[in-house]
Amino acid sequence: MGKKVYAGIDLGGTSIKFGFFSPNGELLDKWSIPTRRDNGGAYILSDIRDSLLERAGDDDEICAVGMGVPGAVKNQKSVAPCVNLNQWGGPDIAGDLSHMLGDIPVGLVNDANAAALGEMWQGSAKGYKSLVFITLGTGVGSGIVINGKLVEGAHGAAGEAGHIKINTQETECCGCGKKGCLEQYASATGVVRTAKEILKERFNRDTLENGETVSCQKVFEMAKAGDPVFLEAVERFAKTLGQALAAISCVCDPEIFIIGGGVSHAGEWMLNKVKAEFVKYAFPASEETIFKIASLENDAGIYGSAFLASEIAVK
Amino acid sequence: MGKKVYAGIDLGGTSIKFGFFSPNGELLDKWSIPTRRDNGGAYILSDIRDSLLERAGDDDEICAVGMGVPGAVKNQKSVAPCVNLNQWGGPDIAGDLSHMLGDIPVGLVNDANAAALGEMWQGSAKGYKSLVFITLGTGVGSGIVINGKLVEGAHGAAGEAGHIKINTQETECCGCGKKGCLEQYASATGVVRTAKEILKERFNRDTLENGETVSCQKVFEMAKAGDPVFLEAVERFAKTLGQALAAISCVCDPEIFIIGGGVSHAGEWMLNKVKAEFVKYAFPASEETIFKIASLENDAGIYGSAFLASEIAVK
Repeated sequence: MGKKVYAGIDLGGTSIKFGFFSPNGELLDKWSIPTRRDNGGAYILSDIRDSLLERAGDDDEICAVGMGVPGAVKNQKSVAPCVNLNQWGGPDIAGDLSHMLGDIPVGLVNDANAAALGEMWQGSAKGYKSLVFITLGTGVGSGIVINGKLVEGAHGAAGEAGHIKINTQETECCGCGKKGCLEQYASATGVVRTAKEILKERFNRDTLENGETVSCQKVFEMAKAGDPVFLEAVERFAKTLGQALAAISCVCDPEIFIIGGGVSHAGEWMLNKVKAEFVKYAFPASEETIFKIASLENDAGIYGSAFLASEIAVK
Repeated sequence: MGKKVYAGIDLGGTSIKFGFFSPNGELLDKWSIPTRRDNGGAYILSDIRDSLLERAGDDDEICAVGMGVPGAVKNQKSVAPCVNLNQWGGPDIAGDLSHMLGDIPVGLVNDANAAALGEMWQGSAKGYKSLVFITLGTGVGSGIVINGKLVEGAHGAAGEAGHIKINTQETECCGCGKKGCLEQYASATGVVRTAKEILKERFNRDTLENGETVSCQKVFEMAKAGDPVFLEAVERFAKTLGQALAAISCVCDPEIFIIGGGVSHAGEWMLNKVKAEFVKYAFPASEETIFKIASLENDAGIYGSAFLASEIAVK
């Protein structure tokens, strides 16, 4: 008898990440392959099958597979067309993959939701049962867990916190087609945009003094060093995010907020600013909500989907 | 053997409402008594016991009791000090009442949450499993049900949607001590305030033309009749509420929104305006969320607490 493993998969627009986990959540092996998006993603599932079976060898028994996908998921099985995967999706992707793998149980989850589950299982939210995970990268994703269960939403749109409207006066469009979303201000892209706006206003340029392009990392570095322009950009970011997290608390009142993604590399200094703004806008009973930086980095997705696998496996 | 009933209680600042329900949700009997708030509410529990036992007579067997209270509840048993009940509350109010009733199971729930459960059990949300109930009265209360389960929140503050910050420029304080809450604009009080502000701006008075005081009912009546001032007040109300409900959808994405409280008497005309604003601000996948007016009126609380009783009863 081989050893029992749970497979966690994180399907992204560029690469597909895989992990084999022991039943108690230890990462045994991880690897990745490029995502082939051609022909509307027609090769995605067979590439996943081939890679899983090849890597497993004779020694491992895959008990169940969980997979995070970059789009809306319903009932852990259907995937709405994914913008980043040439509209790949389908009504029973879980069943299709399960069938290709000899009827191993397969469950799907939105990628930000997978990361939330991962952080709860083996990351910064270990030991908590109700949490909101927010990832601040190119966009803003989030995942919401209440009493240990992921909230999927009636239209697969729970945890679309990046699209909470913050500024009804905004004139530029968000990726979702509407205007004034949190994502337009609190993503890495949003932070850079704000910094450039302030630079433009004050110095009529949108680069650093030496002509270098503004990056999110640079904004936080220079703000920490006391640069007034970048400090103001960070303060606007913290106010916007703090206000949105306070609104989230008024809805589901989690024990803990976990902040991940590129912006989270700015660490505790950034987190304290966000928390201070949160307290200004929070309902009094929720002011003590805990804030932590995510700890699983790019592996959060494979952890979370392996956790889902462990939940759906035939025990 | 007497007939089995579930008791639903709605403890308010002015009166305590009671209902006996059959196991399938039929209201068999209802009555109310005044709330005695003196001595920090020291008589509340004994008044409840006396009234329940007197009304039950020999014929009814009370299987379980649910009670809605005007404050934060944790684990269906503790109540944070209630502003409207002279700071009445305690760490195990459920246990205290249960003990006084000969160890019948007792469960507590926040009053707006009780109304949400009531609407799900026998009201406008019957047949739905995930809903957000919003009551627009003197304040704005809300209750959130996901997959048939009430969301209480880590600090008893889930469903405090009335305190989502809408306007960070607000100068007046909300009842919660902070500024710019939804409640300041979308409650009946808020609608009147907005109408008065517009009247003041345009006509330098804050009454109707005949000197009559502005009421929320009057605002909606005159807006429906085409009065431009009151129509603008209603439009501002609809925009604010639509924006907040869209934010709620980005968090928990319910199947249906149920609107109750005094403002809901403005009916479908009002509801359509709110829904139109909601669609402007909602994440695209959630645009089709259903909107309905609550149907149980003042009985929603006793229905919902009786539903809780039916859930905790020893079966």
